[in-house]
Amino acid sequence: MTDVSHNGGREDGAMAEQRRVGRPSTAVLSSERIVEAAFGLVRARGARGFTMTALAEDLGVRPSAIYHHVPGRDALIGRMRRRVSASIDRTPFEHEPIVDAFVAWGRSYRAAFASTPESIVLLATLPIDADLESFDEYELITRRLVSEGWPIERTLDTIVAIESFILGSALDALAPAGNMRPGAYADAVPTFARAEMARDAAGGDSAARTFEIGLRALVAGLREWALG
Amino acid sequence: MTDVSHNGGREDGAMAEQRRVGRPSTAVLSSERIVEAAFGLVRARGARGFTMTALAEDLGVRPSAIYHHVPGRDALIGRMRRRVSASIDRTPFEHEPIVDAFVAWGRSYRAAFASTPESIVLLATLPIDADLESFDEYELITRRLVSEGWPIERTLDTIVAIESFILGSALDALAPAGNMRPGAYADAVPTFARAEMARDAAGGDSAARTFEIGLRALVAGLREWALG
Repeated sequence: MTDVSHNGGREDGAMAEQRRVGRPSTAVLSSERIVEAAFGLVRARGARGFTMTALAEDLGVRPSAIYHHVPGRDALIGRMRRRVSASIDRTPFEHEPIVDAFVAWGRSYRAAFASTPESIVLLATLPIDADLESFDEYELITRRLVSEGWPIERTLDTIVAIESFILGSALDALAPAGNMRPGAYADAVPTFARAEMARDAAGGDSAARTFEIGLRALVAGLREWALG
Repeated sequence: MTDVSHNGGREDGAMAEQRRVGRPSTAVLSSERIVEAAFGLVRARGARGFTMTALAEDLGVRPSAIYHHVPGRDALIGRMRRRVSASIDRTPFEHEPIVDAFVAWGRSYRAAFASTPESIVLLATLPIDADLESFDEYELITRRLVSEGWPIERTLDTIVAIESFILGSALDALAPAGNMRPGAYADAVPTFARAEMARDAAGGDSAARTFEIGLRALVAGLREWALG
């Protein structure tokens, strides 16, 4: 965790920061710093440009220096996911009513992903790492659902459907405001134009509002399906 | 649509194909061929690597040759979205019961996006093009919702929530099978392990099944919210 690695002469934000506070110009490579750079890389180049070679280049080190800290690309993505997961609040499942618990959890889940949209594709489509923390969260939610009366064989469909909604909503949050305004076509699509104006007139963050409406509706609908 | 453009000496699949059937080696640049190459580019380099310069390189032409056919990047993305939209079946809204209509529409919507996951971020987060076709679809769905009793001010939240769920499910469909298997941790998370086994035991395409369950639950929950 503490070896000093070769700096190929490039600077990134973290290194510049270290220099300002009087640290030596050779940066200390750590698991922490690699994960930080990994988020920068996926923001800059997207899931497809996310390679260990590109990451080494960004860090100004040889790829072997990275492998000293992280066994491979999948493990690195696992650590990125763990960092994102750590900011998701799971405590609502311990005391809140089930719908409110999903809404509170979903709100922090959506926020965690919305900050790095490109990471959604990367983190959402790989196997969850064989890491107790991720499974612990699922265990907590599954138990709660069972205690609410969900048959065990309907719990995972419930969780996966809700996660899909949250990730899709994190994407929707990236769309620019007014992106559904029919503009010059308003006369040709009068019902939709009225609907768009009504949503717009409600003011505030309409993506966030739709997210909460949809999540409540989905959880209610899934409860009806599971217990009804 | 039919000008013969400079071929910088590169070959792609389409050009090789043309050569085999005896066409000249200079490829005909068309709006159609540009859109085709654009999907190839986003698959290869993701949303972040999707630039007009990279596209020109892939096509073996100068960027100006592309601008002769497409006014710019946003317009090109609009055409890509139109190509995706064209494969989405909106006819269910004309005759099917509302929940079935959303499920049938959602199924083809999810399939259209699932084939190019990288395009989800690209196509989902830009303003819908000022194009009558996209708005026509929203007009059709909005009208149908109003005829089912939805207050106009609740129609667009309904549509956006459902689209978020569909896009999130298209992402979920990319996750490898068995990606939630707790493996060695099964003993530590017994409730979740049982839930995972039960979902797995149901066999078939569990992502597709969860999608349909979730979509039905969401539409039912939204109807309850809008009309209840």
